[in-house]
Amino acid sequence: MEIFAYRNKAQSVEEGFKAEDLPALLADESNLVWVDFLGETDEEINRAKDILLNVFKFHPLTIEDCLETRNQPKVEAFPDYLYFIVHGIKPEITNSTNFVTKELDGFLGKNFVVTFHTERFQSIKFVKQQIRNSTFVCRRGAAYLLHQILDQLVDLYMPVVDDFDDSINDLEERVFAMRKGNDAILEEIMDLRRAVTRLKRISARQLDVLYRISHGEFPQIPETVLPFYRDVYDHLLRISDLSENYRDLVSGLFDIHFSVVANKTNDIIKFLTIFSAIWLPLSFIAGVYGMNFENMPELKTRSGYFVVLSVMGLVTAVLLVYFWRKGWIFERKKDNSNNG
Amino acid sequence: MEIFAYRNKAQSVEEGFKAEDLPALLADESNLVWVDFLGETDEEINRAKDILLNVFKFHPLTIEDCLETRNQPKVEAFPDYLYFIVHGIKPEITNSTNFVTKELDGFLGKNFVVTFHTERFQSIKFVKQQIRNSTFVCRRGAAYLLHQILDQLVDLYMPVVDDFDDSINDLEERVFAMRKGNDAILEEIMDLRRAVTRLKRISARQLDVLYRISHGEFPQIPETVLPFYRDVYDHLLRISDLSENYRDLVSGLFDIHFSVVANKTNDIIKFLTIFSAIWLPLSFIAGVYGMNFENMPELKTRSGYFVVLSVMGLVTAVLLVYFWRKGWIFERKKDNSNNG
Amino acid sequence: MEIFAYRNKAQSVEEGFKAEDLPALLADESNLVWVDFLGETDEEINRAKDILLNVFKFHPLTIEDCLETRNQPKVEAFPDYLYFIVHGIKPEITNSTNFVTKELDGFLGKNFVVTFHTERFQSIKFVKQQIRNSTFVCRRGAAYLLHQILDQLVDLYMPVVDDFDDSINDLEERVFAMRKGNDAILEEIMDLRRAVTRLKRISARQLDVLYRISHGEFPQIPETVLPFYRDVYDHLLRISDLSENYRDLVSGLFDIHFSVVANKTNDIIKFLTIFSAIWLPLSFIAGVYGMNFENMPELKTRSGYFVVLSVMGLVTAVLLVYFWRKGWIFERKKDNSNNG
Amino acid sequence: MEIFAYRNKAQSVEEGFKAEDLPALLADESNLVWVDFLGETDEEINRAKDILLNVFKFHPLTIEDCLETRNQPKVEAFPDYLYFIVHGIKPEITNSTNFVTKELDGFLGKNFVVTFHTERFQSIKFVKQQIRNSTFVCRRGAAYLLHQILDQLVDLYMPVVDDFDDSINDLEERVFAMRKGNDAILEEIMDLRRAVTRLKRISARQLDVLYRISHGEFPQIPETVLPFYRDVYDHLLRISDLSENYRDLVSGLFDIHFSVVANKTNDIIKFLTIFSAIWLPLSFIAGVYGMNFENMPELKTRSGYFVVLSVMGLVTAVLLVYFWRKGWIFERKKDNSNNG
Amino acid sequence: MEIFAYRNKAQSVEEGFKAEDLPALLADESNLVWVDFLGETDEEINRAKDILLNVFKFHPLTIEDCLETRNQPKVEAFPDYLYFIVHGIKPEITNSTNFVTKELDGFLGKNFVVTFHTERFQSIKFVKQQIRNSTFVCRRGAAYLLHQILDQLVDLYMPVVDDFDDSINDLEERVFAMRKGNDAILEEIMDLRRAVTRLKRISARQLDVLYRISHGEFPQIPETVLPFYRDVYDHLLRISDLSENYRDLVSGLFDIHFSVVANKTNDIIKFLTIFSAIWLPLSFIAGVYGMNFENMPELKTRSGYFVVLSVMGLVTAVLLVYFWRKGWIFERKKDNSNNG
Repeated sequence: MEIFAYRNKAQSVEEGFKAEDLPALLADESNLVWVDFLGETDEEINRAKDILLNVFKFHPLTIEDCLETRNQPKVEAFPDYLYFIVHGIKPEITNSTNFVTKELDGFLGKNFVVTFHTERFQSIKFVKQQIRNSTFVCRRGAAYLLHQILDQLVDLYMPVVDDFDDSINDLEERVFAMRKGNDAILEEIMDLRRAVTRLKRISARQLDVLYRISHGEFPQIPETVLPFYRDVYDHLLRISDLSENYRDLVSGLFDIHFSVVANKTNDIIKFLTIFSAIWLPLSFIAGVYGMNFENMPELKTRSGYFVVLSVMGLVTAVLLVYFWRKGWIFERKKDNSNNG
Repeated sequence: MEIFAYRNKAQSVEEGFKAEDLPALLADESNLVWVDFLGETDEEINRAKDILLNVFKFHPLTIEDCLETRNQPKVEAFPDYLYFIVHGIKPEITNSTNFVTKELDGFLGKNFVVTFHTERFQSIKFVKQQIRNSTFVCRRGAAYLLHQILDQLVDLYMPVVDDFDDSINDLEERVFAMRKGNDAILEEIMDLRRAVTRLKRISARQLDVLYRISHGEFPQIPETVLPFYRDVYDHLLRISDLSENYRDLVSGLFDIHFSVVANKTNDIIKFLTIFSAIWLPLSFIAGVYGMNFENMPELKTRSGYFVVLSVMGLVTAVLLVYFWRKGWIFERKKDNSNNG
Repeated sequence: MEIFAYRNKAQSVEEGFKAEDLPALLADESNLVWVDFLGETDEEINRAKDILLNVFKFHPLTIEDCLETRNQPKVEAFPDYLYFIVHGIKPEITNSTNFVTKELDGFLGKNFVVTFHTERFQSIKFVKQQIRNSTFVCRRGAAYLLHQILDQLVDLYMPVVDDFDDSINDLEERVFAMRKGNDAILEEIMDLRRAVTRLKRISARQLDVLYRISHGEFPQIPETVLPFYRDVYDHLLRISDLSENYRDLVSGLFDIHFSVVANKTNDIIKFLTIFSAIWLPLSFIAGVYGMNFENMPELKTRSGYFVVLSVMGLVTAVLLVYFWRKGWIFERKKDNSNNG
Repeated sequence: MEIFAYRNKAQSVEEGFKAEDLPALLADESNLVWVDFLGETDEEINRAKDILLNVFKFHPLTIEDCLETRNQPKVEAFPDYLYFIVHGIKPEITNSTNFVTKELDGFLGKNFVVTFHTERFQSIKFVKQQIRNSTFVCRRGAAYLLHQILDQLVDLYMPVVDDFDDSINDLEERVFAMRKGNDAILEEIMDLRRAVTRLKRISARQLDVLYRISHGEFPQIPETVLPFYRDVYDHLLRISDLSENYRDLVSGLFDIHFSVVANKTNDIIKFLTIFSAIWLPLSFIAGVYGMNFENMPELKTRSGYFVVLSVMGLVTAVLLVYFWRKGWIFERKKDNSNNG
Repeated sequence: MEIFAYRNKAQSVEEGFKAEDLPALLADESNLVWVDFLGETDEEINRAKDILLNVFKFHPLTIEDCLETRNQPKVEAFPDYLYFIVHGIKPEITNSTNFVTKELDGFLGKNFVVTFHTERFQSIKFVKQQIRNSTFVCRRGAAYLLHQILDQLVDLYMPVVDDFDDSINDLEERVFAMRKGNDAILEEIMDLRRAVTRLKRISARQLDVLYRISHGEFPQIPETVLPFYRDVYDHLLRISDLSENYRDLVSGLFDIHFSVVANKTNDIIKFLTIFSAIWLPLSFIAGVYGMNFENMPELKTRSGYFVVLSVMGLVTAVLLVYFWRKGWIFERKKDNSNNG
């Protein structure tokens, strides 16, 4: 638990307070207090629960929700405070095309912001750094401080979203470059689909939350701060739009993989057909002259063998010309699109 | 029929009442009465009907709906009470990827909760246990007691939903591992699709009901209890979102099954083509020297046979190199994705 | 044209009135009059037109709509009456998976119900029987009488909808059981798709109509009767939900048919490949020893022929083992799903 | 430009007025004036522009829109008049499954209707005929006259929509009847898809316009005329619903074409496989006895040749039975669906 | 930075002002000032920032958004001005089926328009030309001037949208004309899909912005100018509708490509089958008479060889007739659709 307080329009933000100092800090409405709980151990969670219940006196149900994970993003208004759940995302370490979500719970009051999370957030670390360096953010009040946290959190979506773009392009290139139907690429496409679907779901819920916060529904957010929230909303809207886009493109990857395999199968069958079409008649001719009839005049001629060899050559040539005219071999130039 | 009553802010909840006691219990508004009907036999159903009609004097149409099954989830407000239908789900015994729904009908009045069901509900059993152990739930009134039942009922959705997740992952793995197009897997995917579609439909209707209950539309739910209902709503929202997700993934399974089969067909055809391409020319060469022309100079040479065998070996080698360069055999290393 | 009247809270409903009696019957507001027109012939239609125009004085446009068929379900309010169009459905005689719609037009006034239809409705026949047996329905007024008709009409949707369920299951089974790609099954699937799409369209429009009627928009429906209309609405909602479901499942049938055919093609090609792969090398070996070179030492050995036959057996065995290891023949047991 | 005027409740509608007569005609509010511009030449368009600007004094922007084509259907209210754009459709001459749209612009005022179009409309011609025959339409005022035009225009959608139905059925039949994958049918399906998509788009926009007109948004339409507009709206709604339906069915045609081709490919491959499976072993047997080993005891037997021929017959018979049992040839009767 | 001012209802628009002149120009409410920033270099951007912040005193957040790129179209109202972001599009130079977007930020006040862009806009250049030639636009005020810019900007969407139409038609033709499955065409279809998806996304957001501007939400737009904005909105609506259309058609291209490849594969396999079916039995016959049995009576007959050759000819003829009757070769005339 870390407590930050900005008191008496001071030159700097103080920190290092204890739980016991909280009631006094909160009592003075001109202070701004930020309590950030990191619930990594059961002990930390219990301590947080105790403070949320006894010092802040939040609704027991929201405290329960707050300490749990696996919740949906939401925002709920109470007379004195706002309770919200948002999700941060970060790339999965072992799989660059996937990501994991982290839940950030919080409360916004007149002069306080409370945040609770069981995993470390880069965005929160960054905002702490910011308020240590300058009182600019804190001077603007609790709602602005919270905006700053959410803004950083949403900004960290962008690299993940950009990764998707790269992954889709990369997969598309590999699909076109592949030499044969490739189950491994299919698995990657399915993984991507899963991830994009999740991103869409998460950003849609989050968008709901930010829409409600940024459109003046809650008196806890002063009107002067609303434009800043709308800005966060706009960023998230872009992410949500993109994830919708990606879904389309990923399902296009399936179509393409499938079509490329169909093209390859077509190529192979064509090869088989041409090959068979050439050798089968030649073998037949050889077979005819392998027959053991006593009376086969050709067999006795001097040049019979060579004539037959020439006929075989001729048959081959005719067939090659036939396939060439059909466009099956040695593609003709007037075919304006060529096959990589 | 089981009747529970919490009277005079007593230390414990009483049970074991008879139908005759109901009018007196209900008359005192400070009591909280829960009547739970289990309509397993026609006799039980008729008895329930009698009590609902003559003691509680509910609208005849709602009583009819209540005693029937095969209804949609819904909630209807009457001046003195609320009538609702919700569905519980449990996994089907014979088929882990499917589930069956059970209808729970009920009425919520100022000081009473009535529940009717033709099948046993684990959630109701659990809440009974809870109120036997502690008066905590009953002290908070009828609406809170009902919330407790619904909360337990919705919680039991989660294991079913998690099973879907496992089933999809398991099926995906099996699709990638399958050695050939597999109708049995297709049947399983279709079953899953059916089940997920049903889950989506059921949770969507249920969501409607809980939305209306939890957003202050009905005066029967005091405002202090609303956050608890919103909590149930949030859980259901998560389930509904997930089932939407699953639908996408299941229809992705079809695509994958299809693509994997296409890949396998492609592999087989390639094998056939390579095989034919090697043996056909060899057979032709053998056929040529099987011809019976009298004048075939090669036949008389000492080493003709061995030269021809060598030529056959050469042709085979050339073809193998050709296919290897085409990437059809002995995949080259620079192909960065390999096929399991 | 049949006229029913319930007068002076009588013991029974009277019938057998003539058109001339209508003005007197309608003038007394305590009567309930039901006029049911069956417009099977032009003469009947013209007579109905005359009465609707001159006795009831309905809006000319609604009368025109009423006498036509091919209209969408709708409801329109006029100061003194409500005009509605709904559709009944019945299975097509020649094709159990299809159904035909029948238009029922009608008017609801303070003390009258007018129904017009060009085809016979089982639901109307049933309600007539009901009011002949008991005055219960009529005592509750015109809106309740109309509700009774609509309730019966919607109830008759259910068998058709259940038939769809059976048809889909039956088709799915036949797709999995089919021995080859089957155009006839495809045609049936397409017919089913057509029928389900129609059902969805029709029930969606009908739902609109019943939503508006059952949610208190029209003063012609007294509030005490609204719950009965909501009950009809709920039934229709279930039908509409199911038809949405069926659409999904039917389009799944296409996917499955296609995948099953792909599996079968894969099986056949595998068979062809294995067959060719075994006979081609054997034929080649036979071809080699069919060559006519003078110097082929093997030919002169005593056991050459038998050695070659053994080699041929060996080649076959090696190939069979190879295919067995590839999983193409004699499926190995560890493959946990088997192909019907 | 044709001008029609209905003056002083006269017995007939007058026509043949000049542009100069318009101000006088319009000044008398008891007149009804219909000015119909046909802008086939630039000169006509300029003349129309002049009158719209100087006599009617419409908003310059609407006049610009009015004289252009390629606009979306819309309706806009101005204090004294209503400006609307609607589209008529007619079948394309060269291609029965396609249609062309024609833009009809117009203005509705208290006592006038102005219509402008660059192509001839059958519906307008028809309404002109109607008002020449009877003053019935004109007596009911400007809004009713406009309704009459729109009603006729929407009625002419119906034949086109019915043509789609026929085209889809016809194409479906031809897909099932086709003997091989057919690019020409694919092209027709794609054309139909294009046309249906367009119809859906056009009718959707038009529906918007008629919804707004028919639901009392504009004071220019008296309430007594609204039911007539709602009637037009209902017709359009049916067309819009049908076009949505058709879209589904057309995309089903793609699926079917594809499946039918897959079935045919399956049939062909099966044929190839059976053929190869029969001749390959026979050829092998012949090959074996074509070998030139000196010591091949069978060759010397009297009946060796005939025994081998019999063995060949036996092999063929065994294979045929095998394929018959697999259901690949001579379909067995218990297969209840047969392939056309 | 270019500054235009229209002062004192002058005969012409003045330009060439410096940043220092701005406060004076803006102070007089009867002036109309247009400041157009082109932020191609960092220096220009900084200068713009300075003026926006210190002279116009816009909200810092909007200035930040304004100077950034990669924003979504949006419009935000402030008490004294409106802030908007719109996107222009232009075809990509290297790829005619793709396009790039350019962000245009701007502010609209009572007597000023501010535009900021980092790339050159043809539409802005055109409007500058227009106001240099005539004061017509400026006389109508700031809102009209902005309308003029947006109108030009949206007009430049049209050529890009028309290009899509051409690209789709062109691709469709090439798909039908292609001689084999073609990865290059697939890549083009995928590129088109990407571009159309983007167009849809961008025009949808833009439509939102223009809807809000043109429907009287903002007091900065006088009511007399609203119809002009609605006109721009209508143009954009058409573009948005078309892009929705194109998406459908592009995804149809995938289906068609796939079906055409399936047809081609079918053709090739049919060719292979026919070829094999003819040569395999002929080779078998030759093989039979190549056997070395001592007792093969036919071999000794005079005409045996010629009889066998005739039998071979007969077999070939029978097979050809068989395939012809099956419709596999020499398509019969009654097949009314022919394959290009």
